[in-house]
Amino acid sequence: MKPSLKIAIAGLGTVGGGVLKVFHQRGNELSERAGRGLKIVGISARNKGKARAADITNIPWADDAIALATGAADVVVEVIGGEEGIARTVVETALRNGKHVVTANKALLAVHGAQLAALAEENNVSLRFEAAAAGGIPIVKALRESLIAHGVDAVRGILNGTCNYILTQMEKTGRTFADVLAEAQKLGYAEADPTLDVGGGDTAHKLAILSSLAFGIAPDLRHMTVEGIQHITTDDIGFAREFGFRIKLLGVARRTDQGIDQRVGAAMVRAGTPLADVEGAFNAVVVNAGDAGPFFFEGRGAGDAPTASAITADIIDIARGPTGAAFGRPAGALAQLKPAPAEARRSAFYLRFDVLDVPGVLGEIATRLAESGVSIGSMIQRGRAPDQTVAIVMMTHETSAPSVARALKVIAASDKVSAPPCMIPMEAG
Amino acid sequence: MKPSLKIAIAGLGTVGGGVLKVFHQRGNELSERAGRGLKIVGISARNKGKARAADITNIPWADDAIALATGAADVVVEVIGGEEGIARTVVETALRNGKHVVTANKALLAVHGAQLAALAEENNVSLRFEAAAAGGIPIVKALRESLIAHGVDAVRGILNGTCNYILTQMEKTGRTFADVLAEAQKLGYAEADPTLDVGGGDTAHKLAILSSLAFGIAPDLRHMTVEGIQHITTDDIGFAREFGFRIKLLGVARRTDQGIDQRVGAAMVRAGTPLADVEGAFNAVVVNAGDAGPFFFEGRGAGDAPTASAITADIIDIARGPTGAAFGRPAGALAQLKPAPAEARRSAFYLRFDVLDVPGVLGEIATRLAESGVSIGSMIQRGRAPDQTVAIVMMTHETSAPSVARALKVIAASDKVSAPPCMIPMEAG
Repeated sequence: MKPSLKIAIAGLGTVGGGVLKVFHQRGNELSERAGRGLKIVGISARNKGKARAADITNIPWADDAIALATGAADVVVEVIGGEEGIARTVVETALRNGKHVVTANKALLAVHGAQLAALAEENNVSLRFEAAAAGGIPIVKALRESLIAHGVDAVRGILNGTCNYILTQMEKTGRTFADVLAEAQKLGYAEADPTLDVGGGDTAHKLAILSSLAFGIAPDLRHMTVEGIQHITTDDIGFAREFGFRIKLLGVARRTDQGIDQRVGAAMVRAGTPLADVEGAFNAVVVNAGDAGPFFFEGRGAGDAPTASAITADIIDIARGPTGAAFGRPAGALAQLKPAPAEARRSAFYLRFDVLDVPGVLGEIATRLAESGVSIGSMIQRGRAPDQTVAIVMMTHETSAPSVARALKVIAASDKVSAPPCMIPMEAG
Repeated sequence: MKPSLKIAIAGLGTVGGGVLKVFHQRGNELSERAGRGLKIVGISARNKGKARAADITNIPWADDAIALATGAADVVVEVIGGEEGIARTVVETALRNGKHVVTANKALLAVHGAQLAALAEENNVSLRFEAAAAGGIPIVKALRESLIAHGVDAVRGILNGTCNYILTQMEKTGRTFADVLAEAQKLGYAEADPTLDVGGGDTAHKLAILSSLAFGIAPDLRHMTVEGIQHITTDDIGFAREFGFRIKLLGVARRTDQGIDQRVGAAMVRAGTPLADVEGAFNAVVVNAGDAGPFFFEGRGAGDAPTASAITADIIDIARGPTGAAFGRPAGALAQLKPAPAEARRSAFYLRFDVLDVPGVLGEIATRLAESGVSIGSMIQRGRAPDQTVAIVMMTHETSAPSVARALKVIAASDKVSAPPCMIPMEAG
């Protein structure tokens, strides 16, 4: 039997605490599955005195997380977070010192993933990150090891539980984005600074990782369109339902003839499809993979247990033996992203115009759309409010995103239009 | 770089042909992911002259599949099928000769899985079978490697695409089981002898494998209750809908305080839950795993591409290095199944009685149910047909399966009851 695997955990927040709890409660079972002993040899966190989910009295404490990366451990679990600073230093130092790394750090991987993968290869160690993409859903492993035979055409996912919770609550209660967000913050479902979640940044980090695994490219945020859900109104959600859709914040990465299109933003997803039915804080991913797909995965996107489940799986994989290239292909073979041109982004679009209810306004909008080659599939204008603001909403026929954007820019300049128009593409669910 | 991995394929039906096609079309990409060359060094099938999806002219042919198991290959892919005979001999011979085995053979694994896992360990080779459980869905890997931290409480799945196709078509078209089955056979969706599919046997094989992976036990069919869908009527499907359910053929394995309950049969699944929404020939699996779950997986259950996807993933895993114990735990550590007593099977039940429409029949049924401690939650008796047969359907409150069975046995003996009553448990979806 191999010697015990020595594990250090840098960061004892929700996630690190969840991992400790798992090893406390089910260490023997996990050792059996790993084929060797598993031993926590070091932990570190900002505040030693804080109350924890698991007893830490018998585990060696390091005041400096970087000491874990140079110490006795075989594996360093980095659950500090952040794309730079201490987290990056811990990961790089651990890899350089010949230690395997398990991390939940999506920002770090989205920005430095290819370089870290190369560093892991140079030092002949594993870099694993199941917890970095969709919480407990084993989608990193699925893309890296399972869905590889036919090539991936597209990955579409609900990757941020906070946003999906907010959109679900807005739909169920009819309350505004701001109201629901404030409540989510009070309940601890949303951060005090929610920008990274509701602005789409967190989804972007996760999408960059999934896109890398799916398409064999280095993670790359630079050519990704990223929008959030702050501009979505309860009216949008209601109109979407009338058209037969639900609004979801999606990350979408898609192979086209002209390159790979990566986009984060609100999307109209047809009701009754798997992604449309994902409720609350759950995450979900659809993978198209030629005739083998579609595949659909759903699970909890955050929280101590789902995240600890993902991290534990990575640790046990490492305990079993070499795990291969971090992103599925050797770091040197990861291609650079060739971004698809904006014109490749084609779909139907939901459009909302907040306009003055005066004669001629609909005609003006329709004319501008037509001039950009955008044709209207259906339209709703509910109620009248002469000389006040009303919403006109439409679903277009399939067209390109730049055509719609061009028309919207002209329309937004009209003095009959009282707010920037809202544009939401339709996506398969 | 490691030397090329030498692969032999025993069986060139839909699945074997699909694997060949993948290696033809995407061999280089797969080699890159495997970190080494991949070479098909031998194939075998019953009929050498048959037209195939892939060109086989340059691949060494073996008239006898067993020759592949003693030849030059490092890995033997067994896609012949059947729990005994040539398939079993090929797998055992290959393992004994120090060759890794990848198989899609659910029957073989359900019956001889633990013994074959032990044989693989003795010979220090891998035994892999992602394609044996739910087609392309990577559920074997998920249970074996990903969802291990918190322990599995239950696995529930739609594991037979033919049955799900038939039930979906019955619901959509209102046609009988026999009609839809006949059409499915004509279209090639169902076998000439459909017993293994519609009788639940195929689902039972797959459930035994998933149950083994989930609970660390040797696969065991012996204590499994197995029923099919032949007795389901379009009326049952219609009544289910009225009660807010859909009827699905499920395999369910559940940990109880008194042992593990394994059951294959029709189930009432609440509309709107993930399993209820699975349509056509798709497969799906829900895994409950403490606070980390539920997890939901959906994908194609059969066909050349999904199955070849699963087999290819196993081959690439083997190419990367040692893959660990076949069922997650060392064969010697797999526990023997301790079956839960029948009383542990508790749920609400759908009951259908085909009765003579004469006074007193409902009272008699209700009395017999009450005598067994079964209470009725809701009841439908539609229309009247004095002195002819009508259906009375009910949903009970939660009770144990043996209580219901006892009552039904007494009721079936009544001369007012014209056919064996139908009993379908409710399951979480």
